[in-house]
Amino acid sequence: MSGAGFVSFVGAGPGDPELLTLKAVDRLRRADAVLFDDLSAGPILAHARRGADLVGVGKRAGRPSPRQDHVSRLLVDYAAAGGRIVRLKSGDGGLFGRLEEELVAVRAAGVPFEIVPGVPSACAAAAACGIPLTRRMTARRVQFVTGHDAAGRLPEDIDLDALADPRACTVVFMGRHTFPALAAALIVRGLPPNTPAILAEAVSAPEQRLQRMTVETLAAELAAYPGSAPALILMGPLAEGGDA
Amino acid sequence: MSGAGFVSFVGAGPGDPELLTLKAVDRLRRADAVLFDDLSAGPILAHARRGADLVGVGKRAGRPSPRQDHVSRLLVDYAAAGGRIVRLKSGDGGLFGRLEEELVAVRAAGVPFEIVPGVPSACAAAAACGIPLTRRMTARRVQFVTGHDAAGRLPEDIDLDALADPRACTVVFMGRHTFPALAAALIVRGLPPNTPAILAEAVSAPEQRLQRMTVETLAAELAAYPGSAPALILMGPLAEGGDA
Ligand SMILES: C[S@@+](CC[C@H](N)C(=O)[O-])C[C@H]1O[C@@H](n2cnc3c(N)ncnc32)[C@H](O)[C@@H]1O
Ligand SMILES: C[S@@+](CC[C@H](N)C(=O)[O-])C[C@H]1O[C@@H](n2cnc3c(N)ncnc32)[C@H](O)[C@@H]1O
Repeated sequence: MSGAGFVSFVGAGPGDPELLTLKAVDRLRRADAVLFDDLSAGPILAHARRGADLVGVGKRAGRPSPRQDHVSRLLVDYAAAGGRIVRLKSGDGGLFGRLEEELVAVRAAGVPFEIVPGVPSACAAAAACGIPLTRRMTARRVQFVTGHDAAGRLPEDIDLDALADPRACTVVFMGRHTFPALAAALIVRGLPPNTPAILAEAVSAPEQRLQRMTVETLAAELAAYPGSAPALILMGPLAEGGDA
Repeated sequence: MSGAGFVSFVGAGPGDPELLTLKAVDRLRRADAVLFDDLSAGPILAHARRGADLVGVGKRAGRPSPRQDHVSRLLVDYAAAGGRIVRLKSGDGGLFGRLEEELVAVRAAGVPFEIVPGVPSACAAAAACGIPLTRRMTARRVQFVTGHDAAGRLPEDIDLDALADPRACTVVFMGRHTFPALAAALIVRGLPPNTPAILAEAVSAPEQRLQRMTVETLAAELAAYPGSAPALILMGPLAEGGDA
């Protein structure tokens, strides 16, 4: 089943093609097939050679995304047919990207692979805001969490006390819809409602938008207009003086 | 004071020059001066143009590092002299890299700047191990912490309960010397001693070394031989099947 294929799981960064690594560009140039998600598409795919198969496996325009087991099967099938496959994932592929399911599948099929790390959108968001993610005296811990589980709800098993810690910087991925509930739960656990919060949308893309509020005002804003661009929420003792 | 200078704070990634972003390479090529730390040196500097000033500001061979205020002053002085300055920082510059102090200094001096995010060593370590940093059912939170404060001790104000949460993946930066104490404190708070732990040394460099143990055995190992290569400790519900 393994054929002569080789899979490179490649982190595509936040979207700006200039934030691809040299290794990512090299793997794209040499790929026979590129399987990409929505967020890793666009100008990034211009690095693929003419004639390479470009296969979108994300959800688009409201259509449901292909099931994860279908993506894994496609990946293994491409690899079995031989050649160099790039599995492109937005940001760093190891963060909230369902990488594990695909690793399990390629390992089970005996397909050799590598993982090329990328720039996480959380790091690009802080950079765009002109602030560090960690601060020496006030934020010695930074944490990334997902705002939704498989059913699109706030994960029930999330450690709210860890997120309510006023000395940590928290970045919420995929949190637009659940942030009002999360914020309420954290405020109950002692997070000051006026803790700084930044909504970072479409980071590194031309339509990037950065808005600085507080946990309380951002929750109210998202409850009224959840919006739809890819977005991160940064909250905690965020440095002042930035561009958001 | 601001002259015509421009500062690019550039994340250099974990060390492998192939893990530089295209933007980082561009900024290095166009720099008149590059101020670099130890971990961002080596082959990465080969991208700088001939004739650029290459200024090491890290600690080397046991000599104490230049004081942070000295680095900030140097940066502002170079910028005041005009030209394009790259301030190169290992990994992503916003993570445990003292970026804030330097941002405050360039802002105070009125020097225009940008921040170019990079690949964090934590993401590169997980990639090298062949595992994701997050896992769908078991690790929906990932956190990065520093293992030492300004005096080289375990920070006193660290949230031990957040780190003892068995459902989070934790990456400890600069933790070689303090991990035995940290592990003991976490085990007291309920972290199972046999929680998987990986020591990832010199990630992405030729001398890279990855060792999989448990929190308890790694603590014992580091208590006996703390070692000296740059290292990260990953712990939590780490996926099986990886290369460490
Ligand atoms: C499935 S997760 C993948 C995260 C990715 N692996 C990373 O490291 O950034 C997708 C989510 O990441 C965030 N995201 C990714 N790219 C983004 C961008 N350019 N701007 C804002 N948020 C982004 C959004 O929360 C989005 O819903
Ligand atoms: C001052 S911190 C800077 C971290 C950096 N900003 C990042 O994003 O990786 C330096 C520490 O990062 C970790 N580190 C950086 N590069 C590493 C590498 N290639 N391998 C292992 N650890 C590394 C080590 O813990 C090291 O002591």
